[in-house]
Amino acid sequence: MPNYSELALQLHAELHGKLEVKSRCSVSNRDELSTAYTPGVAAPCLEIQKDVNNSYVYTNRANSCLVVTDGTAVLGLGDIGPEAGMPVMEGKCVLFKEFANIDAYPLCVKSKDVDEIVRTIYLISGSFGGINLEDISAPRCFEVERRLKELCDIPVFHDDQHGTAIVILSGVRNALRLTGRGKDARIVINGAGSAGMAIGTLLLNYGFEDVTMVDRYGALYVGNSEMNPAQAEIAKRTNKRMIKGTLADVIKDADVFIGVSAPNVLSKEMVQTMKKNPIIFACANPVPEIDPALAKEAGAYVIATGRSDLPNQLNNVLAFPGIFRGALDARASEINEAMKLAASDALTSLISNEELNPEYIIPAPFDKRVVSAVAAAVAKAAHDTGVARI
Amino acid sequence: MPNYSELALQLHAELHGKLEVKSRCSVSNRDELSTAYTPGVAAPCLEIQKDVNNSYVYTNRANSCLVVTDGTAVLGLGDIGPEAGMPVMEGKCVLFKEFANIDAYPLCVKSKDVDEIVRTIYLISGSFGGINLEDISAPRCFEVERRLKELCDIPVFHDDQHGTAIVILSGVRNALRLTGRGKDARIVINGAGSAGMAIGTLLLNYGFEDVTMVDRYGALYVGNSEMNPAQAEIAKRTNKRMIKGTLADVIKDADVFIGVSAPNVLSKEMVQTMKKNPIIFACANPVPEIDPALAKEAGAYVIATGRSDLPNQLNNVLAFPGIFRGALDARASEINEAMKLAASDALTSLISNEELNPEYIIPAPFDKRVVSAVAAAVAKAAHDTGVARI
Repeated sequence: MPNYSELALQLHAELHGKLEVKSRCSVSNRDELSTAYTPGVAAPCLEIQKDVNNSYVYTNRANSCLVVTDGTAVLGLGDIGPEAGMPVMEGKCVLFKEFANIDAYPLCVKSKDVDEIVRTIYLISGSFGGINLEDISAPRCFEVERRLKELCDIPVFHDDQHGTAIVILSGVRNALRLTGRGKDARIVINGAGSAGMAIGTLLLNYGFEDVTMVDRYGALYVGNSEMNPAQAEIAKRTNKRMIKGTLADVIKDADVFIGVSAPNVLSKEMVQTMKKNPIIFACANPVPEIDPALAKEAGAYVIATGRSDLPNQLNNVLAFPGIFRGALDARASEINEAMKLAASDALTSLISNEELNPEYIIPAPFDKRVVSAVAAAVAKAAHDTGVARI
Repeated sequence: MPNYSELALQLHAELHGKLEVKSRCSVSNRDELSTAYTPGVAAPCLEIQKDVNNSYVYTNRANSCLVVTDGTAVLGLGDIGPEAGMPVMEGKCVLFKEFANIDAYPLCVKSKDVDEIVRTIYLISGSFGGINLEDISAPRCFEVERRLKELCDIPVFHDDQHGTAIVILSGVRNALRLTGRGKDARIVINGAGSAGMAIGTLLLNYGFEDVTMVDRYGALYVGNSEMNPAQAEIAKRTNKRMIKGTLADVIKDADVFIGVSAPNVLSKEMVQTMKKNPIIFACANPVPEIDPALAKEAGAYVIATGRSDLPNQLNNVLAFPGIFRGALDARASEINEAMKLAASDALTSLISNEELNPEYIIPAPFDKRVVSAVAAAVAKAAHDTGVARI
C-alpha cells in the first residue's frame, strides 16, 4: 500500500485546506452588486422574516449541512483537540460534496462540556439544513445527539453511530441472505461504545432476535454493574440467554461476529467455536479484530473489514451522503429510525441474488448507484413517516 | 434605477444560496480517498495536535473568515431575526471571495444575549482565521466585539463600525486635502450608534482635534444624562467647546458633516450655516440625511453618500476585503488601531493630488487597486505593531 500518511501531509500542506467557499453569483458591476448585496438583498431578508421556511428558498440552507466535532474521538486517535479534528471535518465535507453535491461546512467546538456543545450547535442551527455530528466521544455523544434532536427542527445525525450501523446492518443482511439464515441468527457485537450501541439498536429495530453485546469488561446483561446507563438500557433488549463472561464465552455457536473494538481481540480459536460458515465483520481501523487471512483459515465464510484493499469494505461513505441527500431533498425535520432502515434496505437491495457472493455482500464505495438509491429510499421514508416538509 | 428588490428576489430564488462549498481535491478512487480522508488524514491531524499553529498549514484556516450575525440590526431593517439575516451574510461572503479571495463562512446565532453570543462565537473560533461581526445592534455590538477580542487569538472586526469608519476617514481626509484644511477642521458626526461611535473614535485616533457628536437627543457632552456608557466615554474626547443643543446648533461653522443617522435630518438652512465650501457625507441608506442636489444648492463643495448612482460612493467594500486579506496574510492575532489607520492611509493615497476633485475623493468600489493596496498596508502595520505571526 502507498504511504498514505506521507501523501496526506503533502496534499494537505499543498492545498492549505481541502475546501473553498465559492460564490455562485457575479458582483463585477454596480447592478450585480446591488442585486446580490445592498440594497436588493433586503427583499429576500424580509421574505424570510415573514416566514422562516423561506430560508430554504432564498439561502443555501436547503442544500447545506454542518459537520461538527469537539475533537474528543477523532478517528482512532482519541481526544486530540478541536482544531486537530478539522482535517477530518474538511475531508467529510469533501465527501458530502463529491458524493452527494451537498454544501457541507466544517466546524470544531472548543469545549468538552455537553451543555455547552449542545447550546453552541443549537444556536447556530438556523444556518443549516442538517447537522452531522462527528468524532465525539462516548457516552457524551449519546446525550449531545439526543438533546440536539429535541431542540432542533432539522436532522441531527451522529454518523459514527448511525452511518456505521446502517452499513453494517446492510452487510449482515446480505451475508445472512447468502447463507440462508434469518432474523434468528445469533449475533455478537464486540465493542459497546458509540458505534457498537448504534449497531445493536438498529439490528434490534430491524428485527434481529438474538443479539449479544460485549465490552472490555465482558458481556452486557441485565444487572451487570459495570455498564453505563446507555448500556444498561440496551441490555434489556439483548443477551436474552443471559450469557455472562468474556468474548470467548459469548462467541460460541454465534452466526455473526461484529467487531467495532480493538486490534486482534478475536482469535482463530474463537472463530472455530462459532456456527458453521461464520460471518466475521472486523471493523477496527486500521488493524482489524482478526487478520482476515487468519479468519479464513479458521473457516470464516464471509469476511468484511474497513480496509480498502480487501473485498467487502464497510465504509460510511455508503450511507451518509445518500441519507443527508434524501433528508435534504424531503426537507425532513429529522432522520428517524424508518429512514435509517430504508437506507439499509436500499443498500442491501443493490446486490442481486445472482451477484451476491462471499466477496460481494456490500456495494463498493465508488458504486455510482449508491447515493441516488439511498437518497430516494430515505426521502420516501421521510414522507411516509410524516417528517418531510416539501 | 432598476428595481433591485425584484431582481434580488429572482436571483436568490433561482440560486437557492449565493455560495457553495467546493472541494479542492478529488476523491474518485481508493488512493485519493485514502489520502484526503482515512487513513491518511490522521497524519495532518496529529501535526495539529502537536502544535495548533499547524492548523494554518493543513486546513483552510489561514484563508478563512467567519461572517456572523444575530440578526438584530440587518441593513436598515432592524431586528428581523437570525435566519432572515442570512442573505446578507451570504452576500458579504460573496464579496470576501470575489474581492479578496477569502473563504468566508456565513452564520447566524439564534440568541440576543450578549453572553451567549460571545460564548458561541468564541467556542467555534478555532475553525477560522478571522471573525467578521455583522449587523449586531448597538450598544450590544460594542460589548460583543470587546469581549471577543479579549478571548480570541484571531482578528475580530465589526465591519459596520470599523469598515465604515475607515472608508469615511479616508474620504474626509481627501476632501480636506482638496480644500486645504487640516486636523483642526471642525467635524460634526450625526448619529452616535455603532457606526458613528467608531467613526468618532477613528477620527480622534487619526488626530482630528475638533469632533462633535450628535444623537437623537442632541449633542454629546460631558455630563449629558441621556448618553449611554459608550457615549459618555467618547464625550470626554469630543465637543471640547461643550456645545449643547441640537444638530442645528452644533453644525454652525463646521467644516464637515458626517451623517450615519436618518433620512432628511440635515436641512438646506443648516448647511448654509456651515463654513465656506462645506463637506457633506450623508451616509443614511437608502435615503441620505440630505438630498445631494439640495446640499449642492446650499453650497456644499464635496458631497458623498452610500448611493451607487452618485459620485463618491462610501462603500465598505473598499475596506473589509483588503483589511482581512492583509490580516490573514500576516496571520495577525488582531486588527488593531494602527492597522485600521494604515488601511485608511492606503485608500487615501490611491488618489493623487492631480486626480483629486470634488467628485473623486474616494476610489470607486470596483477599482482593482484597492484590495491589494489596503492589504499590503494592513499586513505591514500588523508586522510593525508586533501582531503578525508569519
